[in-house]
Amino acid sequence: MTVLSSLRALVDEARIRVTEDGLTVRAVDSANVAMDDLELEAAAFESFEASPGTLGLNLDRLADPVRLASKDDLVQLFLDPESGKLIVVVDGLRYSMACIDSKTVRAEPTPPEFDLPAAVTVDRDALQRGVKAADLVSDHVRLRMEAGADALVIEAEGDTDAVTLELDGDDIEVLAAGDASTLFSLDYCKKLVRTIPARTPVTLDLGEDFPLILSYELADGDGTITRMLAPRIET
Amino acid sequence: MTVLSSLRALVDEARIRVTEDGLTVRAVDSANVAMDDLELEAAAFESFEASPGTLGLNLDRLADPVRLASKDDLVQLFLDPESGKLIVVVDGLRYSMACIDSKTVRAEPTPPEFDLPAAVTVDRDALQRGVKAADLVSDHVRLRMEAGADALVIEAEGDTDAVTLELDGDDIEVLAAGDASTLFSLDYCKKLVRTIPARTPVTLDLGEDFPLILSYELADGDGTITRMLAPRIET
Amino acid sequence: MTVLSSLRALVDEARIRVTEDGLTVRAVDSANVAMDDLELEAAAFESFEASPGTLGLNLDRLADPVRLASKDDLVQLFLDPESGKLIVVVDGLRYSMACIDSKTVRAEPTPPEFDLPAAVTVDRDALQRGVKAADLVSDHVRLRMEAGADALVIEAEGDTDAVTLELDGDDIEVLAAGDASTLFSLDYCKKLVRTIPARTPVTLDLGEDFPLILSYELADGDGTITRMLAPRIET
Repeated sequence: MTVLSSLRALVDEARIRVTEDGLTVRAVDSANVAMDDLELEAAAFESFEASPGTLGLNLDRLADPVRLASKDDLVQLFLDPESGKLIVVVDGLRYSMACIDSKTVRAEPTPPEFDLPAAVTVDRDALQRGVKAADLVSDHVRLRMEAGADALVIEAEGDTDAVTLELDGDDIEVLAAGDASTLFSLDYCKKLVRTIPARTPVTLDLGEDFPLILSYELADGDGTITRMLAPRIET
Repeated sequence: MTVLSSLRALVDEARIRVTEDGLTVRAVDSANVAMDDLELEAAAFESFEASPGTLGLNLDRLADPVRLASKDDLVQLFLDPESGKLIVVVDGLRYSMACIDSKTVRAEPTPPEFDLPAAVTVDRDALQRGVKAADLVSDHVRLRMEAGADALVIEAEGDTDAVTLELDGDDIEVLAAGDASTLFSLDYCKKLVRTIPARTPVTLDLGEDFPLILSYELADGDGTITRMLAPRIET
Repeated sequence: MTVLSSLRALVDEARIRVTEDGLTVRAVDSANVAMDDLELEAAAFESFEASPGTLGLNLDRLADPVRLASKDDLVQLFLDPESGKLIVVVDGLRYSMACIDSKTVRAEPTPPEFDLPAAVTVDRDALQRGVKAADLVSDHVRLRMEAGADALVIEAEGDTDAVTLELDGDDIEVLAAGDASTLFSLDYCKKLVRTIPARTPVTLDLGEDFPLILSYELADGDGTITRMLAPRIET
């Protein structure tokens, strides 16, 4: 369910690639600002039996039957090869859902490769706090690190008011202490951060006016989500 | 309070018949699709002293002062014979409310008599689950039983998706295992099921394209609600 | 935070007078119907260091960073003499906020002096109950006391329905048992009562068609709020 809500923050429809090792979903939002890359290993499932292929799915519609499950209910997914429908079974309830021709779903983007100078791991709740405060004064938020300084600074400047949150000490783990400073759209930041489960350690890779790479592991370590957010360039 | 909210799902105004043995309220919704029949024995009240008669009441307005009562507050109702007003007293608060001329309230319907082939008792929460799932794909829901099969099937079919919930085993108690299959409007089903208290055993009487008779006892067994819902005939 | 929400019920902007002994805020709503008078002694603050002066503040904007504080967080306020900005610091988060030229904020009213014949102390929750009940039947509420009778009566009369709540005995402490009866606008009463913390003893001073003076102490007794509400004269 958590995985679903992360993806739904970005896109309505997604292509799901099924291999013998697990699932991969790669989705980009319609404005090309944010990209999500989800890998779920077969071990993340109670049992996993799949013939390789690609599936187009409306994520909103998939969320409907999944919401009917209690926390401990097993959610079973089958692809009926005859009807081409996805069957979702939750505690006696059987929901049959039409798939979308995966060719009509937006093509998967190729993730760009960067070599970013700064990297830091921080708790999602600290990020959330900075993003919420920034939202009080502006539409943008700047993430900033300095070579040699063990701190991540989240700051926003409005017309009359300004906000600064400096995270340091036990709040962060600096992985690479390079110079970095980039402005991002708060709308996107809010969506990304909100859909990360509370108290999850999140790794940020940052540069100077470069995209942000944000990554975290799913609950039991059987999968990873990597999210990329394009910078907002000041003009 | 529970009794009030059940009735209010259907109608705004109702005629209340008072006899020495208790109260009877019978109400039909303005579209003639659903009918409610409530019987409250005198024993359901802390004390009951009434001269027989008929009272017209706006149920929405009656709910207002009743909502001001805490869970354990005694709600006292008096009919002031002089002013013709209903006096509601709740912990020091005195609310005087005009009654409606019972002749202007919609006449009480005569409940039709059926002999339905199938009957089953099921928990209200299981019904709720089926109705909610059906609501994801359609505006209608079918309730189905088969002669000889110990199961109640709740199903709905949309344009591309479909939902089936099969209740059997410990979830139900089949009272009469005849053939039955009828389609109902989900809007009405949702209202009826939502206003039944959680975890109440509910008895359904079903036929082939016949009205549904749904009945359950009030908390302490001092009253019964019988609700009838007209079928939605496919044309 | 509680103090802020009380003031915000009335006004958006306020002049805050700072002296060596504490803060005083006096605000009147734009319709001149209600007035608030807040005194916070220096002892109400963890530490208080101030140079006397007057500050114009947008209370809505001040509430934003204060909301980011957890219950036990210390909220620090500094006035930066150079930039003229108010700096709010909450657990590592630094929020700098422009003040308003106090000359552009509505002038402080002079509180009128009355000698009211009736006074009673009553729990805020009992007031709340009476106001909510009155709201079911009317737009106005009457507060009434009688010389020699140990009771406060809250009553409202609508077109067909009426509500009376009589508070006496242990529910009230009569300080002056004179004759008093005044009608007030329910909209204002609801706002005033809603923003008083639950279970606070509130003192009411009442007359015959005179303003209501409502006063209560802040949690630890280091400050007082006095609120005045103009009567609604029947015409």
